[in-house]
Amino acid sequence: MFKLAQRLPKSVSSLGSQLSKNAPNQLAAATTSQLINTPGIRHKSRSSAVPSSLSKSMYDHNEEMKAAMKYMDEIYPEVMGQIEKVPQYEEIKPILVRLREAIDYTVPYGKRFKGVHIVSHFKLLADPKFITPENVKLSGVLGWCAEIIQAYFCMLDDIMDDSDTRRGKPTWYKLPGIGLNAVTDVCLMEMFTFELLKRYFPKHPSYADIHEILRNLLFLTHMGQGYDFTFIDPVTRKINFNDFTEENYTKLCRYKIIFSTFHNTLELTSAMANVYDPKKIKQLDPVLMRIGMMHQSQNDFKDLYRDQGEVLKQAEKSVLGTDIKTGQLTWFAQKALSICNDRQRKIIMDNYGKEDNKNSEAVREVYEELDLKGKFMEFEEESFEWLKKEIPKINNGIPHKVFQDYTYGVFKRRPE
Amino acid sequence: MFKLAQRLPKSVSSLGSQLSKNAPNQLAAATTSQLINTPGIRHKSRSSAVPSSLSKSMYDHNEEMKAAMKYMDEIYPEVMGQIEKVPQYEEIKPILVRLREAIDYTVPYGKRFKGVHIVSHFKLLADPKFITPENVKLSGVLGWCAEIIQAYFCMLDDIMDDSDTRRGKPTWYKLPGIGLNAVTDVCLMEMFTFELLKRYFPKHPSYADIHEILRNLLFLTHMGQGYDFTFIDPVTRKINFNDFTEENYTKLCRYKIIFSTFHNTLELTSAMANVYDPKKIKQLDPVLMRIGMMHQSQNDFKDLYRDQGEVLKQAEKSVLGTDIKTGQLTWFAQKALSICNDRQRKIIMDNYGKEDNKNSEAVREVYEELDLKGKFMEFEEESFEWLKKEIPKINNGIPHKVFQDYTYGVFKRRPE
Repeated sequence: MFKLAQRLPKSVSSLGSQLSKNAPNQLAAATTSQLINTPGIRHKSRSSAVPSSLSKSMYDHNEEMKAAMKYMDEIYPEVMGQIEKVPQYEEIKPILVRLREAIDYTVPYGKRFKGVHIVSHFKLLADPKFITPENVKLSGVLGWCAEIIQAYFCMLDDIMDDSDTRRGKPTWYKLPGIGLNAVTDVCLMEMFTFELLKRYFPKHPSYADIHEILRNLLFLTHMGQGYDFTFIDPVTRKINFNDFTEENYTKLCRYKIIFSTFHNTLELTSAMANVYDPKKIKQLDPVLMRIGMMHQSQNDFKDLYRDQGEVLKQAEKSVLGTDIKTGQLTWFAQKALSICNDRQRKIIMDNYGKEDNKNSEAVREVYEELDLKGKFMEFEEESFEWLKKEIPKINNGIPHKVFQDYTYGVFKRRPE
Repeated sequence: MFKLAQRLPKSVSSLGSQLSKNAPNQLAAATTSQLINTPGIRHKSRSSAVPSSLSKSMYDHNEEMKAAMKYMDEIYPEVMGQIEKVPQYEEIKPILVRLREAIDYTVPYGKRFKGVHIVSHFKLLADPKFITPENVKLSGVLGWCAEIIQAYFCMLDDIMDDSDTRRGKPTWYKLPGIGLNAVTDVCLMEMFTFELLKRYFPKHPSYADIHEILRNLLFLTHMGQGYDFTFIDPVTRKINFNDFTEENYTKLCRYKIIFSTFHNTLELTSAMANVYDPKKIKQLDPVLMRIGMMHQSQNDFKDLYRDQGEVLKQAEKSVLGTDIKTGQLTWFAQKALSICNDRQRKIIMDNYGKEDNKNSEAVREVYEELDLKGKFMEFEEESFEWLKKEIPKINNGIPHKVFQDYTYGVFKRRPE
């Protein structure tokens, strides 16, 4: 059963209508009021932003994912409430109250791709005897651990990129009175994740693996983050166009996005289900990479073309084409350089990585001439067809549904 | 044997003369030339700063510490060379080369208080049979792990405080082409520390303890870092003078400095020697806290008075009294507020935390009126006398020399 293609149009349009309503979800409302009512919180202005409803609506098509989302909402207060059980809580309360604020402001508002897949697929992967109420709860805790680390990377990104907004509200770092001290909040979020493991998981048979998987996630994703800097000379800001190759683009995607989104989610789910086997996950690398490349290249596509068929806010329109302006290595840039003629190459080299709209327009014209939009659609279609053919061949015991869900989670992100 | 007081004047004067020569140490020279000669390094300007010689000279009085320092120098290339053995090295080399650069630029130039004490005291604490060549080497690796984490906190501090220099050269973050991307370098340093543990320690009987001790160090020190923000309202920048109490000052010192410098060093040394017992270290808390309070209050003293009897560079003179200007909770501020009259309290409240020299002069005048310098000397002398009396009473098996060395390492920091 591989019905993604057929299900796509309906769910995408449902996503669209949900987005336009922009109704805050239940948890969002809860944590917002918490922010207002928690004693000792000084930054009331933080709570005024209306949270995005994306996190709920994204899984409306899928009952299991919806249930996982709901379950995560249910255990959220208990999991994050562990902050109050840190032995130092009474002694230096203000900083731990602030940590809770930082978490409430950022963590619940992601898409929870990792969290819901861990919670939902745990039941698919585990031996039925292992699916005890206690372990179901642990899957939720682990889902939140993955989501805290996800927020950690987003927050660090926002600091390094000097970003004003994320998910429709000001970034934590840009809130009044936060600034670069956000670095400490972010580091505390990382350490709190390991504190959660220590509190909930010591009796879990894969405790050591889970620890190591999270540590490895942090190391590899920071490497990917740092690898991203290396395509621009840090002093002269000159782009090294010779490094804009398909091979380097694939490496960048692997470390910066794909590993943390797909490999790591599957690793954590397997370890949670006590069936973790690194060799099996290595065998699945081609499938996970293909899903991931589709995912990341879609981000690149959306940066260029998301005004097509979507009603955008003015703020979103103004950042279209940011990747060209900031000199990112994207699917489009590497593709263009691999097939263009000398004249087109010169235009790209003269205009890429410059802030003016005129420069990015020149690059976009080359993309038009090369029909990169069409080529991207082909690439995506080919990837999808390849996955449709390859996923059923997986025979190492990991259910095909895992990869179908991942593919579906990605393929639906394509704009109408 | 407790000869610290007698040995003090000589060693302090020797420290002074060493400092004035400002000769780079051997390792400093090695890593500087490495920076220049490593292929692919673009930031040659980084290597021009002359490294401080403090790290060598500080231990000239003590043969064991000197030997530990030398041993750390010897194994440095092998330990940091492990970066090249990270499985991703060949695939995304530029970022791992940059990680090595960040480490070479920062880690070897600290005082290595933690590193040399771990290496030196390991032999004091371990069962003689446990002091194998292999374990001696591990003590050096662990010393470097502690020093990487030390540099990690300094670098994050520099980013959050927007500091231009550290140890006589530009901060990593202020080097051309680095900027806020330094956050990723710093996070990679943290992750590399755990990578070192994973490479060297899996067979060590206290591997799990060492892991947990380092994790706890990170959590508690970030808490201390964050606790420091909470004395100033982040939005209005108004200082909460009611929180400037001895109790809060002690808590701040405990989490921000003392725990990471003393408790943690002893924890790591004990675990390295396979004699780690958290209960014993808890018993020693009063002694470690007393040493630590002396250490931190001396930093506060030096911020106000280090022009007394010391030849300072112009750059150092200009930052005297920074703690008053930036509104820090210091030994002097809490002491003044606990004994001043209403007029003096008003002067402090009107002038503390303001950038103008006139304001900090007004606060310093109140300190003069209250003879805080004299009171500080008394406090230090009392602490020293207390330690002289209490250290010999320690009878839980940890050699007194450990605490004498810590005390000596601190007491000698007092300016002439």
